Amino acid sequence: MTPLAEDEALQRIRSVLGSRIGVSGLEDDAAVVSLPVSGSVVASIDSLVEGVHVDLSLSSPGDAGWKALMGALSDLAAMGAEPVGALVALCVPEVEGDGSLALAAMAGMAEAAGESGCAVLGGDVSASSELVITVTVLGVVPTGEPPPVSRGGARPGDVLLVTGPCGASAAGLRMLRSMAPTGGGAGAADQVAANVGAHRRPVARLAEGTLARRHGATAMIDVSDGLALDLHRLADASGVGFVLDAVPVAAGATIDEALGGGEDYELVVAVGDSAAERLCDGFAAAGLRAPLRLGRVVDDPARRVLDGEPLPRTGWQHVVG
Amino acid sequence: MTPLAEDEALQRIRSVLGSRIGVSGLEDDAAVVSLPVSGSVVASIDSLVEGVHVDLSLSSPGDAGWKALMGALSDLAAMGAEPVGALVALCVPEVEGDGSLALAAMAGMAEAAGESGCAVLGGDVSASSELVITVTVLGVVPTGEPPPVSRGGARPGDVLLVTGPCGASAAGLRMLRSMAPTGGGAGAADQVAANVGAHRRPVARLAEGTLARRHGATAMIDVSDGLALDLHRLADASGVGFVLDAVPVAAGATIDEALGGGEDYELVVAVGDSAAERLCDGFAAAGLRAPLRLGRVVDDPARRVLDGEPLPRTGWQHVVG
Repeated sequence: MTPLAEDEALQRIRSVLGSRIGVSGLEDDAAVVSLPVSGSVVASIDSLVEGVHVDLSLSSPGDAGWKALMGALSDLAAMGAEPVGALVALCVPEVEGDGSLALAAMAGMAEAAGESGCAVLGGDVSASSELVITVTVLGVVPTGEPPPVSRGGARPGDVLLVTGPCGASAAGLRMLRSMAPTGGGAGAADQVAANVGAHRRPVARLAEGTLARRHGATAMIDVSDGLALDLHRLADASGVGFVLDAVPVAAGATIDEALGGGEDYELVVAVGDSAAERLCDGFAAAGLRAPLRLGRVVDDPARRVLDGEPLPRTGWQHVVG
Repeated sequence: MTPLAEDEALQRIRSVLGSRIGVSGLEDDAAVVSLPVSGSVVASIDSLVEGVHVDLSLSSPGDAGWKALMGALSDLAAMGAEPVGALVALCVPEVEGDGSLALAAMAGMAEAAGESGCAVLGGDVSASSELVITVTVLGVVPTGEPPPVSRGGARPGDVLLVTGPCGASAAGLRMLRSMAPTGGGAGAADQVAANVGAHRRPVARLAEGTLARRHGATAMIDVSDGLALDLHRLADASGVGFVLDAVPVAAGATIDEALGGGEDYELVVAVGDSAAERLCDGFAAAGLRAPLRLGRVVDDPARRVLDGEPLPRTGWQHVVG
């Protein structure tokens, strides 16, 4: 096995991605992006770092590639944008090998691209001491529709909804860590499989985000770092507080995992009282899971409570030096 | 000094970038990108990895930030696109500290953003074991103008030009490596400073790329990995060969550094015989340095020669495993 030079690595990655390549086919210095409709372009960048966002003893390189794309797409979902394409920068350890780590990661990403309908338009490959996958996603909000939804538009009186229960990913990670290397363990195998799947192969709520935007969402954020922390961020940006009366906990998860686990990629949606019912009807008509009620937005930014108690800013933040 | 949490790091980065922030101000999950004119969107992604693309004992973190943006912008230049904005994913070592590495890198990037007129629209900060700066740049080619220029359009008979002499960056790196830690050394101090500057603070040829596109360039590539390798890549994509009659070597550099050094970010331009003169007149009218003649494109893809000898595929490729 000989090390794989950059040009050859790119050639093999092209074949892994196959028909999911866009116009310029990773051949040129830059990709020419075709917007399917005219509108506002929305863009986001996100890195997945080995040992920080993914443990390669518990998830496969393909899972890492899947998660890198879905995590970036979740940011588009939180704006209510429809995905147009992705650019991928892959940094892989410079070791003797046949490039299998890079190719396995890209194969997982290709699956996520198929699942989400988001083409991979271009990329870059570098050597590094650990796996780092950085994905930029481009999306569009069509002209004539309600604009992209920020974190900062929630108004006192708005209802707070979430597109699904939280904590499944954190529960899956806990189960993976407690399992013997041979896997298994007694009990509710289906539940374990569901939680592990939620951790390894999360799904961005793209249809939900677009529909919420069309139905009058005033603010949105995706639950990437923990429901509690992300609620605080939405409230910070909007200059409001909140009173929560429920926390939807995923099957198999604890309430701490629901509040602080992160990587659920459910969307928190603020929406006016009168629009909330129409939004829920819209979800039902589209065959999407009914949004769950979290509570209500209040005027006082200092008031952020669950069951009458202040909600701690729990969640997962990188410490950078 | 306490470690800096992600939200606080982003807050400080916002203040470093100051007025160079776009519409969404790094506040939201994704940036809303305003195109200054309607046209084709062009996008590219590029990573700069500590120890691979930059040696932090020879360049500052600010140099790394500058180079990360300019390297990505060079890919837009090679398509003839005008920059619209950049997204930055910063991965920085998780050590005790006040975030100074991250902030210094972003300060250098802010200088490059000012120099190139490219706003930073959004970003992401992660922990990692080494500095990795990944930049996505978005550009536009206005409707009604000649389209983006690929690598693959060179035709037999085209003239091959380059926007400047090559090897200055590699020469600067050689000089940095041979200097005592206190710096200095006898002799041509101005030359050393120029070469070191070319290595630490390269400049993307954005005006040159746009002008070459408007004046009929059939193919372009930027010299990122070495003039010889990048010429071969252009010829591969175009299915042609080339006969070179000159290699413009930068002052202070060797011909090996010009052919194989890389990071010059000059543009190689293929253009039809009749258009070449108008292109050079256009550069002169715009006050840009006159393009230098490399040679000519030929029909036979197997014929790629300099002074009658086959041109080796020298240059710099990452080896990935």
